[in-house]
Amino acid sequence: MELRILAKEISKYEDKTVKLEGWVKKNRDQKEFGFIEFNDGTAFNPIQVVYDKQLDNFTEVSKLNVYSSIIVEGKLVKSIGSGQNYEIKANKIEVLNKTPLEYPLQNKRHSFEYLRTISHLRPRTNTFNAVFRVRSILAYALHKFFQEKGFIYVHTPIITGTDAEGAGEMFQITTLDFMNKNKKLDYKDDFFAKPAFLTVTGQLHVESFNSAFRNTYTFGPTFRAENSNTTKHAAEFWMLEPEIAFANLEVNMDIIEEMIKYVIKYVYDNAKDEMDFFDKFIEKGLHDKLNNILDNGFARVTYTEAIKLLQESKNKFEIDVEWGMDLKTEHERYLAEQIFKRPVFVTDYPKDIKAFYMKLNDDNKTVRAVDLLAPGIGEIVGGSQREEDYDKLMKVINEKGLNYAEYEWYLDLRKYGSVPHSGFGLGFERILMYITGIPNIRDVIPFARTTRQLEY
Amino acid sequence: MELRILAKEISKYEDKTVKLEGWVKKNRDQKEFGFIEFNDGTAFNPIQVVYDKQLDNFTEVSKLNVYSSIIVEGKLVKSIGSGQNYEIKANKIEVLNKTPLEYPLQNKRHSFEYLRTISHLRPRTNTFNAVFRVRSILAYALHKFFQEKGFIYVHTPIITGTDAEGAGEMFQITTLDFMNKNKKLDYKDDFFAKPAFLTVTGQLHVESFNSAFRNTYTFGPTFRAENSNTTKHAAEFWMLEPEIAFANLEVNMDIIEEMIKYVIKYVYDNAKDEMDFFDKFIEKGLHDKLNNILDNGFARVTYTEAIKLLQESKNKFEIDVEWGMDLKTEHERYLAEQIFKRPVFVTDYPKDIKAFYMKLNDDNKTVRAVDLLAPGIGEIVGGSQREEDYDKLMKVINEKGLNYAEYEWYLDLRKYGSVPHSGFGLGFERILMYITGIPNIRDVIPFARTTRQLEY
Repeated sequence: MELRILAKEISKYEDKTVKLEGWVKKNRDQKEFGFIEFNDGTAFNPIQVVYDKQLDNFTEVSKLNVYSSIIVEGKLVKSIGSGQNYEIKANKIEVLNKTPLEYPLQNKRHSFEYLRTISHLRPRTNTFNAVFRVRSILAYALHKFFQEKGFIYVHTPIITGTDAEGAGEMFQITTLDFMNKNKKLDYKDDFFAKPAFLTVTGQLHVESFNSAFRNTYTFGPTFRAENSNTTKHAAEFWMLEPEIAFANLEVNMDIIEEMIKYVIKYVYDNAKDEMDFFDKFIEKGLHDKLNNILDNGFARVTYTEAIKLLQESKNKFEIDVEWGMDLKTEHERYLAEQIFKRPVFVTDYPKDIKAFYMKLNDDNKTVRAVDLLAPGIGEIVGGSQREEDYDKLMKVINEKGLNYAEYEWYLDLRKYGSVPHSGFGLGFERILMYITGIPNIRDVIPFARTTRQLEY
Repeated sequence: MELRILAKEISKYEDKTVKLEGWVKKNRDQKEFGFIEFNDGTAFNPIQVVYDKQLDNFTEVSKLNVYSSIIVEGKLVKSIGSGQNYEIKANKIEVLNKTPLEYPLQNKRHSFEYLRTISHLRPRTNTFNAVFRVRSILAYALHKFFQEKGFIYVHTPIITGTDAEGAGEMFQITTLDFMNKNKKLDYKDDFFAKPAFLTVTGQLHVESFNSAFRNTYTFGPTFRAENSNTTKHAAEFWMLEPEIAFANLEVNMDIIEEMIKYVIKYVYDNAKDEMDFFDKFIEKGLHDKLNNILDNGFARVTYTEAIKLLQESKNKFEIDVEWGMDLKTEHERYLAEQIFKRPVFVTDYPKDIKAFYMKLNDDNKTVRAVDLLAPGIGEIVGGSQREEDYDKLMKVINEKGLNYAEYEWYLDLRKYGSVPHSGFGLGFERILMYITGIPNIRDVIPFARTTRQLEY
């Protein structure tokens, strides 16, 4: 009987007769014999299948179009010439499904733009196969990192009544038949009997668990109804938000640095072939860029010092540098690439450009915020120590004109058992783009949702 | 210098002087000395802190109300009398935050109903601390199980244009200002320029990755705008949906059984104290119920045989048993509890009561569906082998009156490289309720969303 095996484990079965189920990636037929590049989806690199006229169905096999599904039986041997690869000398090829010639993914170069129009098929290409395997591995690496540290994973709600960032740009959700002109619209008839929205962050919610479990994180989809058509914005994206009790901003930075190094290493350990592919075809120098991160401690500088360094650099920026401004990508990248030549934490930003929940410094002008800026991309993580003092937090809520009633429950956390705590947000697609070198967010999300784009 | 440690690791520090940060769970003051039940959120069971008049701030400490936050320094010793527990002889207690007396979670029994009104504080109670720690561990166990098998985790989209179950009851999402009567509503002005909904399942989307990676799963929030006010329904819940290529229904069942046993065992290995608490206070006999699952192979029976067994049982059911019906919970539980006395897979249901994508059997009457029924709950997993034949699938889509255009991309998967494949859906809250014994879904979701209920 043949051994039914997976492509990822072939090296264990040299000189054995094996059976594999999968797909034809290429088929070259040379009259008396032929070669199939075969894969079953469990490994990145294909296996060569050699077949000849001894097959009962040689003619059928030799005509198989790309992505036909087959079952191959044969002897697994080391491939002569091509080094480490294996090939199968087929003694039987069963055809499950013959893909017709109109298959939209024939073997030729396709633009990423075109492939976006067939999101349901593009994971079959080398690039997207590598991207989405790394996406899976990276997501798991983040879980593994925090679980092994004893952090509690909290599924913060997707549907919310709170505008946590106070920034607007939220999607509303409803069961009202609002397009029906004959109906009178009344929130009393809506599912939740009030306006409801898709969450923009899980941070406020996770903080309430933080004060019960000490260390927590949330990791799930978040939404922005932002009408910007850029390579960095999607309406639906995943965000990781850890929250650490009894931690100041220094501890926060330590964990961010440890986490980033951990997940890069984990991806290399589990997707070497894919990372080599990215380095070769997507971003030349990717290995060097990531090794630089693994090998160096991240720099730390205050916002005020960073402003000074940028001003002293005499570099011509599109937007002039002055204290009080929000750093633009050009400034962030200059800091990481030219001044520090490695990732740099910038801390203590002006309070006016940061969120209401960040801890006020004694100078009354800056807050204990931190952004991690990385070479080649700019901001990759944003976080802060949180304001744990009830009165100070209440004051900011009033100053920023936020609706107190919406935050009453959040303020309870400062009234009852408040402790110093810190946390951060990691845009999952952002770090995935950084690790794979893929420049457009639409190409790292299985089915990307952007302005006026909702297919499938 | 004191060792700063976590409650979960105290057994390593016997007779050492340690420092812990956390909260007062109880405080009994006896004039000359006092006892604090202390926890820092990293362990389920509290640590006893003994303090006396040698503390500078004895009076302040002796008046601390429940859930005040403190830093304790002192010697960690084995507690005399109370067996395995430890206590700290405090030589210093720093008070971070004094919780005022109006704190809504004083030490007395609170009803689950009341605690739902303070979802942001209830994780501090024993019950909810245990529930949400197990929720985190269980979620991770599912990831671990599938990752270690090489399954690819796919973030299927939350926002969708497809009604995958063809069942309606979806939430619509929009950026139109529909309550504004002065505005003319036009989908051209909506964010996606067309109607958009919250997903009810990721299955169809994950299938497209299945034909690139062989083994895949999705695990994320799903939504039903179902107007039912029961203990089992929530508008927002998490679902795990694996999809396995080159797998028939038998392989599907093997994986379901292996997965369920794996995660129960993982929870016991990582939350023993919490599981003991549930067995003692939430569901007496929980350990026995779960051990029965671990120790026995699951039974397998066809729907047709199951109907016969139920009819032959002569049991009085509220709803009479006849072929063609959808089994109700009373029938499901009778099968698992009375007839098989263990979990049972029921397979090959009538096609009319199952979804369009399930594989038709040769009898033309039944489909290769499977439900796993467990003692004490009924259905816990639902799955099927999928129809891989393009023509047959097209026929059902027409028969069921579904909109072909919406499923064109899904049909592509049958046109190009179709293979036999199977998958299933596990309601995450359902198995969490089963493992913890918690009877109401509102009590296993951090912030539950149900009809007319949207707080925080």
